[in-house]
Parts: sequence; structure tokens; C-alpha cells
Amino acid sequence: MKIAVFGTGNVGQTIAAKLVSLGYEVMIGTRDVIAAKSRTDTDVYGNQGFGTWLLSNSKVNLGTFAEAAAYGELLVNATSGGSSVKALKSARYDDLKGKIIIDIANPLDFSRGAPPSLIPALSNTHSLGEELQKEFPQAHIVKTLNTMWCGLMVNPGMIGGGDHINYLCGNNKDAKTKVREVLKKFGWKDESLLDLGDITNSRGTESLLPIWLRVWGTIGTGAFNFKVVR
Amino acid sequence: MKIAVFGTGNVGQTIAAKLVSLGYEVMIGTRDVIAAKSRTDTDVYGNQGFGTWLLSNSKVNLGTFAEAAAYGELLVNATSGGSSVKALKSARYDDLKGKIIIDIANPLDFSRGAPPSLIPALSNTHSLGEELQKEFPQAHIVKTLNTMWCGLMVNPGMIGGGDHINYLCGNNKDAKTKVREVLKKFGWKDESLLDLGDITNSRGTESLLPIWLRVWGTIGTGAFNFKVVR
Repeated sequence: MKIAVFGTGNVGQTIAAKLVSLGYEVMIGTRDVIAAKSRTDTDVYGNQGFGTWLLSNSKVNLGTFAEAAAYGELLVNATSGGSSVKALKSARYDDLKGKIIIDIANPLDFSRGAPPSLIPALSNTHSLGEELQKEFPQAHIVKTLNTMWCGLMVNPGMIGGGDHINYLCGNNKDAKTKVREVLKKFGWKDESLLDLGDITNSRGTESLLPIWLRVWGTIGTGAFNFKVVR
Repeated sequence: MKIAVFGTGNVGQTIAAKLVSLGYEVMIGTRDVIAAKSRTDTDVYGNQGFGTWLLSNSKVNLGTFAEAAAYGELLVNATSGGSSVKALKSARYDDLKGKIIIDIANPLDFSRGAPPSLIPALSNTHSLGEELQKEFPQAHIVKTLNTMWCGLMVNPGMIGGGDHINYLCGNNKDAKTKVREVLKKFGWKDESLLDLGDITNSRGTESLLPIWLRVWGTIGTGAFNFKVVR
């Protein structure tokens, strides 16, 4: 299966590399292919620039957002939340039609200092997941994986035997079933995947970012996740 | 030590009863003493009306918000988040001066249906904890316990051997140290208490409500909490 990953950041890189290792054909979509290839600086967290990363991940194809949307049978949104709608609008209508978009982005607002808050128009009574479903009604948005560091998204067994939670939500049951299969290939146990219901539940999972960021800042590692104890 | 609990709801009742069982002298504060005593109907969740509860919890004193503030050496805010400022404004300035207010309330907004969202003015870039500290600078606000069902607040050992998380935050270190002592008497282990820092971190813990409410709705019990797996 061909999968398109929107976004060249650390999250997009991590998802794309995992998908390649699982045998999927992968294209990363970006706004400007030449600019993406030219980013070779390591960021403040020690992550490779995309251009450098791509050289050592040569099985990953690179294209524009529009090319990636046409390429992928399944799409993953790993763009920054504030630019996700614009990125996906680069796709032709028919290239999103009937397709699943796994939305792992968060609408973070860095304009008010650290830790970031959520973009006001996409918080509390709304969410990025809902906004994407509204803007792209021809696609099936499934929100998942957005509540943790990307290293854990594709390797949940790294901590606690993999016994911690990953939420999913979306309006289409078949789409969620298909996404569960991909998540299981990432290493997620069925009992760790909690389906909250329709896409409005993105309000809940995106609201986890403010506490996630603060726990990260307090314990000093992003390699943690929450578990539901009952 | 004398402790005042603001709020006659299920949370206030639970905290007050626990404090009495621990040997504290307790007064519950309310807007209207006669009205509070007359509430005898059981609510939709099966909780006793306050008047009925009070009859079987006769060691608990009842007074106005102002009387409770004068009475308590330590105060607990268990009012509904939208009315907390008004409730505490009933207190004389000097009756809050230098006192710790343990804020366990959440700024829930039920006006847009279920599950509730957060009151917009007290969400994302602000919080109830911060608002209380701003409105009552003479007091030391310590936010804690607001991320779980009240039954667990006072009996964390009910699930998972008590190994799940309770955040606290506030601007005054001595106040947080004193609150930790009370929390330990409630049964909290020191390693389960995560100090996030100053009161702005209330934005993080209050933001947990949207996901808490959805997990509750999905798994069908409020007797759960989150644990940090790392």
C-alpha cells in the first residue's frame, strides 16, 4: 500500500521511516520540495534537518502536498496544526475523496511563549480534527497518536511494556478499523487503543497537549505516556 | 486544625467527610445556609442531597462562605468553577490573608451541552487557578485533586494500589509543602504527587477535564485515573 505523509518535521520523518520499515511505499509531501531538501541544520532538540535525514532514508519519496495526496491510498497529517488546512487544500478534491487521513497533528500556538497554548479558534469548543473533517468532507479523518512523543507513536513497547494509552476517534467506523490495523503494526496492543467515538472527541485528545507539555517539562523526558488505571 | 470547605456538592461532601474522619474540625461554607439544608433530593448520579447528607454527618459545621472563611485556617474550594470567584469574594479580605486555598474546582461550561467544555475566559491561555490567585493575592492558591473523581481524591488506594498521578501547582513553596501533608493523609504516596511549578500550570491540569470526561463516558466509570508511564 502507498502511504503519503504530510509534513517534513521530526514527526513526519519518524512515521515515514517506520512505514518504510513495515514495507509500505511512502511519499512525504511538503510545500516546497527544493526548500525541504535544503534544510540540513540540526534543530535544538538534536533532530536532523530534513535534507540530511532524506539522504539516509532514500526509500522515502518526496513530493508536493498535491503530489503526495495523489500518490497515497492512505494519508497521514503530520504538519504543524496551524498550517494543516492550508497544506491539505493543496490537494485536488478527488485525491482526498474516500481516503483516510490519519491526523496526528496538534493546533499548537507558539505566539505567546512557552509552553505553547492551543490556537484559540481550534480549542475547547472546536478542534483541529473537526476542522479538517469540516474542510474535507470527502475524506475520513481519524485522529490518533497526537498525545505523545513521536518516538513512542511507532514504538510503544519502548516504555511500560507498551501498556499505555492511545486514543482514536473519527466519524467512520471502517476507517477506524483500518487505522487500528496500521497502529497494531506500529506495535500497539488492541487493549491500548481506546476509541472515544466521533471526531468531536478530538477536543479531548488535543486538550491533552497542555498537560503533556508540562509533564515533559517537569520530568525532563518526552519518552512517557499516560495509562488509564481503573 | 480547622478547615473550611467551600461548596456543598458531592465533592465538598466527600472532602469534608474525609477531613472529619482524619480528626480535623470542618465547616462547609455555602451561599445560603437555609437553602442548602433544604436540598434533600438525590441527584441523577445517586448522590444524596446536601441536607440529607448533613444529617448523617453531624460533626460538619455549616456556615455562610464568609463564616467559613473566618473559621478555617486552611480553605478548600469545591464550588463549581464558574462561581468560585463570587463565592470567595464573600469572604472578608483579612479572612483569606496568608491562608492556603486548595483549589480543586474546574471551570466547566455546561451551556453548550454534554460533555461540558471549559469556560472560554478560563481556558487555554488562562485558568481558574490563576484567576483565583489574581483575585485573591493575599491567599496562597494551590491547585490539586481537580483531575479525578472525588471518591479517588480521598481514597487513591481504591485503584491500582494508589499508583496514579495527582498534580499540584502554586506560587508558594511552603503552601505546597503543607498541602502535600494533607494529601498524604488522604492516602497519596509522595511519588504520586507531581509538582508542576507555579499556578499557571493550572492551565495544564484543568485542560485534562475534556479528556477525562470522554474517557469516563467511554469506559463507563469515574473510578479511574491516569498514571505516567516512563
